[in-house]
Amino acid sequence: MKSNYITKNKIGLLALCLILGQVLLAQKNDEIQLRKIYDAALTQGKSYDWLNHLSNQIGGRLSGSVQAQQAVDYTKAELDALGLDQVWLQPVMVPKWVRGTPEFAYFETDPGITTNVPITALGGSVPTPPKGLKAKVIEVQSIEELDVLGADNIAGKIVFFNRPMDASHINTFDAYSGSVDQRGSGAKEAGKFGALGVIVRSMNLRLDDFPHTGGLSYGDTPLNERIPAAAISTNAAELLSATLKLNPEISFYFKQNCKQLDDVQSFNVIGEIKGSTHPDEIIVVGGHLDSWDLGDGSHDDGAGCVQSMEVLRLFKEIGYTPKRTIRVVLFMNEENGLRGGKKYAEVAQKNNENHIFALESDSGGFTPRGFSFDSSEADFKRVESWKPLLEPYQVSMLVKGGSGADIGPLKNDTIVLAGLKPDSQRYFDHHHSDNDRFEHVNKRELELGAAAMTSLIYLFDVYGIDGAVK
Amino acid sequence: MKSNYITKNKIGLLALCLILGQVLLAQKNDEIQLRKIYDAALTQGKSYDWLNHLSNQIGGRLSGSVQAQQAVDYTKAELDALGLDQVWLQPVMVPKWVRGTPEFAYFETDPGITTNVPITALGGSVPTPPKGLKAKVIEVQSIEELDVLGADNIAGKIVFFNRPMDASHINTFDAYSGSVDQRGSGAKEAGKFGALGVIVRSMNLRLDDFPHTGGLSYGDTPLNERIPAAAISTNAAELLSATLKLNPEISFYFKQNCKQLDDVQSFNVIGEIKGSTHPDEIIVVGGHLDSWDLGDGSHDDGAGCVQSMEVLRLFKEIGYTPKRTIRVVLFMNEENGLRGGKKYAEVAQKNNENHIFALESDSGGFTPRGFSFDSSEADFKRVESWKPLLEPYQVSMLVKGGSGADIGPLKNDTIVLAGLKPDSQRYFDHHHSDNDRFEHVNKRELELGAAAMTSLIYLFDVYGIDGAVK
Repeated sequence: MKSNYITKNKIGLLALCLILGQVLLAQKNDEIQLRKIYDAALTQGKSYDWLNHLSNQIGGRLSGSVQAQQAVDYTKAELDALGLDQVWLQPVMVPKWVRGTPEFAYFETDPGITTNVPITALGGSVPTPPKGLKAKVIEVQSIEELDVLGADNIAGKIVFFNRPMDASHINTFDAYSGSVDQRGSGAKEAGKFGALGVIVRSMNLRLDDFPHTGGLSYGDTPLNERIPAAAISTNAAELLSATLKLNPEISFYFKQNCKQLDDVQSFNVIGEIKGSTHPDEIIVVGGHLDSWDLGDGSHDDGAGCVQSMEVLRLFKEIGYTPKRTIRVVLFMNEENGLRGGKKYAEVAQKNNENHIFALESDSGGFTPRGFSFDSSEADFKRVESWKPLLEPYQVSMLVKGGSGADIGPLKNDTIVLAGLKPDSQRYFDHHHSDNDRFEHVNKRELELGAAAMTSLIYLFDVYGIDGAVK
Repeated sequence: MKSNYITKNKIGLLALCLILGQVLLAQKNDEIQLRKIYDAALTQGKSYDWLNHLSNQIGGRLSGSVQAQQAVDYTKAELDALGLDQVWLQPVMVPKWVRGTPEFAYFETDPGITTNVPITALGGSVPTPPKGLKAKVIEVQSIEELDVLGADNIAGKIVFFNRPMDASHINTFDAYSGSVDQRGSGAKEAGKFGALGVIVRSMNLRLDDFPHTGGLSYGDTPLNERIPAAAISTNAAELLSATLKLNPEISFYFKQNCKQLDDVQSFNVIGEIKGSTHPDEIIVVGGHLDSWDLGDGSHDDGAGCVQSMEVLRLFKEIGYTPKRTIRVVLFMNEENGLRGGKKYAEVAQKNNENHIFALESDSGGFTPRGFSFDSSEADFKRVESWKPLLEPYQVSMLVKGGSGADIGPLKNDTIVLAGLKPDSQRYFDHHHSDNDRFEHVNKRELELGAAAMTSLIYLFDVYGIDGAVK
């Protein structure tokens, strides 16, 4: 009996050793794969060249524009050249808003004494009358303040929303969230009090001369009651505010002839590597291909697009065969409609596709710090167990939170959604302005983001998801 | 007995509660202080204005130059204005190397067919002959390769060191360490084989047109055997290398009339707040005031200087009274001599001063990621216990490693030395070149560094060091 007991123990020990050995081997293998990914990304990366073309040969890619279509054609051709298993265009109708001739604005301190102001129409705004709009200005710090002031103080005037982004936030996206209601809803709310127009301090933490555009919503305001809205640069906002303190009677003039046209045909650009063992489990990586028309949309979100393309290219480059289906999706129309994201989710549901993980990069091409996860507790724990693998690459800041606007519509009880979290400090220096330019993207920072994304997708490909209900 | 037992237990419990309460209270208090520091740094920061003056009004501050003296005067005056307990200049003799007229270089593919090359003399180099130096070029990848080639292949030629920084490193300082021997020792080593001069590929991970200078050492090479050395831009290095592959017979010409003059008088700039309860325990925070003469030295190391000044100003701003003596030291001559750092340590030792902690910022004014520590195990553990306090500010990457060149001479068995670790990706785009300019410093990134430094110094001030022997 004794020898039998020992034998049993020996077998147990052997089994334990085998299991432990396999775990260690798997971990070692993951380490090797991540190192391969980073080596390839940093020494033979393609994302920067792609972004160069997208930014400098095509430029700003507002939904429905010629440039947006050029971006569709270009990225499709580049994905075709990667030798993926399938590349296709997914049709989607998108809104077409056009800026028209460049906007013009000034404030007038005395008759004929004017100071020009850098200005940009907000995306979706109605135009001013053809000759422009001139009125007295009332400065407010918030939408709530409109209620306090009431129609008596607002009617017939231009409302100037001037609450700055709060610089004390560490994550600049929190500062953005705390101020962007002025841009998004200012016109809708001020219009209720009889304002003739709205100007908003640009969503920018710096003091400079770039006006930053961005979407607004009129909600259900009838078309004929909508008032024009525009953003002025932070320097101009400071100057206007200081001038108003000296003389509240000054008037502001702006002219814009932007226009909402009928929806037009556009596309999401999609490519995939079929999974070798679980082809029905789909992992999506993406960014949005459209951008605003100011600047060239390098950070928002050319960077996210080329990084997502790079994920699939890097798998090819290092000779990794994914077990699950890896799909890159370049979404159209994130900026002013989210039609691409909605369409993709709609088609996925119609086709009964099983998406287990989706990752979006839409926070700029800066040094990656980690990822944000919208997942079950069990899946977040699994992600946290990968921390030691990510730490050598300085991308181990793993937090719970949002993912990305375009992949949001894929949300269900089990899918893991994630967003790349690059360092956020410089993002709003560029966001939605003529200052979002290729020269402000650092090649290594962009490549590190692509490598981090590829690493995370590799890990999800190898280990899948827990799939616990959220 | 029983009631007594209970009473004892109650007292024990009470004591435990009190201790625990105090710990929690202290932790809460630390959280509040750090938040105050960050709020002040991000909303009422002064470092960016100081850097603006240092960079745009004074500019590059090579040791012994007029600009270096202007920087001494300016920072002393600014420290005086802060109302510190003491501000003084510490005299130190520094080497004075001057660049002379701008360097000039080309390579010649056929007689009279030349291509100009962006070039800069290496700091400390001897000049070329007055009419310049023209010779055939031999390209090498390493100092070791010189031995293989031998004098037969090297004598009478210009040696071209062209090993690039290795882009696969995540921390770019590792890539720098792996290549900088070519700049530092290339001339000394190539001279032994009869080379007439040395050109080095710039220490830069990007391909661009900026040549990057930096110090070299001739070791004990006699003065008359020293050969001139210069750096060429990475783009020029690529072009020259490609051209040499087509035609190894091309010649290279460069002219520089740089010169080593006699040592001159300069100063470390020092200011301090006396400790309220442990005035004899000194905490130093610093950067180096000198820079190379190309660019304006904003990242290297204007940033570290103004961040260090900001530490003391922030304590004043939030009304914090340090228990220990907090001293800011702006070291002179880090770049080509380290005389300031050596002098400071020498005087400290002579005066029997007890330095418990020294922190240097000399890795650029980029988003801070954490700190590197040279300390006993016990002190590193103590630092790690502060991680939860640092995590909300995204500066919790605490690693063992080097600190800073200027504070190195303070090293002893018990002192804790530390270096700020900013994100390293962009540092070598600027380092030692005309591209190190104020416009490449982001205000928030600079301020976050100052706040992180102030937070760490606050914690050392409150808790002191363990002081275990290393």
